[in-house]
Amino acid sequence: MDAPGALLTDLYEFTMAAAYVAEGMAERPATFSLFVRNLPPERGYLIAAGLDDALAWLEDFRFGDAEMGALAALDLFDDEFLEWLRTARFTGAVRAVPEGAAVFASEPLLEVDGPLGVAQLAESYLLNQVTLQTTLATKCARCVDAAAPAAVVDFSLRRAQGVDAAMKVARCARIAGLAATSNVAGGSRYGLPATGTMAHAFVQAYDREADAFRAFADCFGERTILLVDTYDTRRGVERAIEVAGEMRARGVELRGVRLDSGDLVELSKQARATLDDAGFAGMQVFASGSLDEYAIESLIRAGARIDAYGVGTSMGVSRDAPSLDTVYKLVEYDGRPVRKTSEGKATWPGRKQVWRRPGFGGDVVGLWGEPGLDGAEPLLTEVMRAGDRVGVEATDLEAAAARCAAVLDSLPEGVRRLRESDSYPVTASRGLAELTASLPADHP
Amino acid sequence: MDAPGALLTDLYEFTMAAAYVAEGMAERPATFSLFVRNLPPERGYLIAAGLDDALAWLEDFRFGDAEMGALAALDLFDDEFLEWLRTARFTGAVRAVPEGAAVFASEPLLEVDGPLGVAQLAESYLLNQVTLQTTLATKCARCVDAAAPAAVVDFSLRRAQGVDAAMKVARCARIAGLAATSNVAGGSRYGLPATGTMAHAFVQAYDREADAFRAFADCFGERTILLVDTYDTRRGVERAIEVAGEMRARGVELRGVRLDSGDLVELSKQARATLDDAGFAGMQVFASGSLDEYAIESLIRAGARIDAYGVGTSMGVSRDAPSLDTVYKLVEYDGRPVRKTSEGKATWPGRKQVWRRPGFGGDVVGLWGEPGLDGAEPLLTEVMRAGDRVGVEATDLEAAAARCAAVLDSLPEGVRRLRESDSYPVTASRGLAELTASLPADHP
Repeated sequence: MDAPGALLTDLYEFTMAAAYVAEGMAERPATFSLFVRNLPPERGYLIAAGLDDALAWLEDFRFGDAEMGALAALDLFDDEFLEWLRTARFTGAVRAVPEGAAVFASEPLLEVDGPLGVAQLAESYLLNQVTLQTTLATKCARCVDAAAPAAVVDFSLRRAQGVDAAMKVARCARIAGLAATSNVAGGSRYGLPATGTMAHAFVQAYDREADAFRAFADCFGERTILLVDTYDTRRGVERAIEVAGEMRARGVELRGVRLDSGDLVELSKQARATLDDAGFAGMQVFASGSLDEYAIESLIRAGARIDAYGVGTSMGVSRDAPSLDTVYKLVEYDGRPVRKTSEGKATWPGRKQVWRRPGFGGDVVGLWGEPGLDGAEPLLTEVMRAGDRVGVEATDLEAAAARCAAVLDSLPEGVRRLRESDSYPVTASRGLAELTASLPADHP
Repeated sequence: MDAPGALLTDLYEFTMAAAYVAEGMAERPATFSLFVRNLPPERGYLIAAGLDDALAWLEDFRFGDAEMGALAALDLFDDEFLEWLRTARFTGAVRAVPEGAAVFASEPLLEVDGPLGVAQLAESYLLNQVTLQTTLATKCARCVDAAAPAAVVDFSLRRAQGVDAAMKVARCARIAGLAATSNVAGGSRYGLPATGTMAHAFVQAYDREADAFRAFADCFGERTILLVDTYDTRRGVERAIEVAGEMRARGVELRGVRLDSGDLVELSKQARATLDDAGFAGMQVFASGSLDEYAIESLIRAGARIDAYGVGTSMGVSRDAPSLDTVYKLVEYDGRPVRKTSEGKATWPGRKQVWRRPGFGGDVVGLWGEPGLDGAEPLLTEVMRAGDRVGVEATDLEAAAARCAAVLDSLPEGVRRLRESDSYPVTASRGLAELTASLPADHP
């Protein structure tokens, strides 16, 4: 897939920018705020992600000959606008919550301060990446939290929503603390170990299940995890033990068995007992097959004996909440705070900062520059200035993973709960509340 | 985003291929069948899509220096396998259902006939693309079907699951018969008109709503669609009429207004009446805001007066069914039909053809080469032979769109129903049933 680059934008961003150019407004200062209006009912918190790709897009923002040709072919724009576009660059600033941090409804994940025209053109791509990656990092974090201390491995490549999504699952898995991914390209790019076992096809390609196990163990020795459910799971475990015994005689201990169907509670208990009785207490039991955080929680409550979970489609598409109610709203133009007052979709005006009380004691959304709360931590920092990145801390994957781990350690249990979580308190500062009240509801 | 290429594969595909190479099995003939085990409860039919990207991947299959380096770095594979991989190409055949056709559970969307090693390595990517695009084409077709004869426009770029998904929504929108897309890159690549209106930000950037409307109409004349809900929708419509009158005096008729919030039934009726009363019966009413096929059906039943629907996130992520239960199963190896008998996940063996009775009178899954049913149409055709494509008909977007339109014209109403659809009959041929019964359930 060729990268679609700067043309990957809603047409209306171009039509608006063209009108701004025609009106002499395109270079006036503006601020856009990217935030989630409401959390999905299934989510008590979000893990911020996607900032690195957002910043990379702003850095690379430019229209080459191919893009200019495609735009001219629309027969919609005049020469003045096309000429403006040819030399347009992002020269503004970005203030953002670092990746891996917890965020809640109405809190900016990032704010773009820059000339109105280019800042408007960034809307579609920034929303696309921040929405996708925040969705995925949150879902991954919930799976890690449900399984802990057992490990979670990303198996979602085959049914993630396309190539970019599959890669970003691996990236978000790294942030959220998964142990590994099956996706070789994703693991390689984002520094997560690549792991895997075998498919049923492998077992089927041999006349006898035990012969398939022998062939695999011959090749992969101590890394071998045998898939035991192609035919009858109990017999599959017995054959795995037979092959594990042969390998032990050659000085090699196999790593474990994988269950992928049936009643995982009963089968995992039986597999554990059979392995232990046969003297293979060191072999692990892996489980996969339509798992997600809810299924993992149920398995653990029911006493399943599982050492690691392979989680695929439901995590990779975030099945119960596959998108977020993210928006990118103009909050200040030409020095003047503005707000939208549409029915049910009103927004807070002005450039913002978020203050978080210690121990997740509640957040206050205030105006940027407004005095902070005593003892509270400001969440947004400047990450881009005059079109260049400022440091790497906010998007470094190791730092993001540490932040996410700290969130799972310290977020109140009620907010972390998988279902019917408590609502986390987010309020407006006095300055923000007064500004909001002071702006008219209509602009005749 | 750089294309991750041939490394975008689950690690276990490589470990299995390595074992096949070590055992001398990698070049033996095999057939894999890609099908959907069960339809989601919300789906009565699927629209096949994704074949073009699957074939492109098979054509381009090769490992360059970068990929070989990443694989060697895993410290998992011996030199014999790495050398095999360096020269491996896909030299087999693909038989497939053409894009845009209807498919149902248990029917192969495609079958890969080729040497076991490379055919196995294709699993992850083929599943990824066929799953995504069949999911999206199906969802798009449902939206088109619900809105007909009103038009549907794709607004999903900003919250689709990543770059690839956003592009593939545009591709599947083209197959399913949407009128346009907001995605400039997607429209340009897949031949769908790009359209758009304006964002609330545009209105907010002006002191007065009417001034924003004037500026936009000045730039875009007869293409102008004014977004009227930034503040108060009824007043927004009145201001749109004021500006439409000014433009009419200059000989320009505006195209319409867009509603994006509130009670779309009442607001669309009011907007229609107000426009008509003011002498602007030619101006259209566009609607958007959390729409999908269910919302469109409800709006139409409630008497909304809407000429075109902008459908975004719910369609772009296929919210109610964001993935499919697709699998890629070995069905024949070295001339021997094989099958999996796992609990609840058993599969049909052998290379297959699907026969469809006229007027969607039921499908029969048979063995490839088995005599067909009188009067029934075979669904799979050879689309790749010896590693090269055979014709373009199965993946041509215009042909795919014609096929999908024919499906929506002729599929029984009960199967097309949005909720609680009828189950479409798919049965095994006598030859397939006998073969399935003849294979053992276990392979000790």
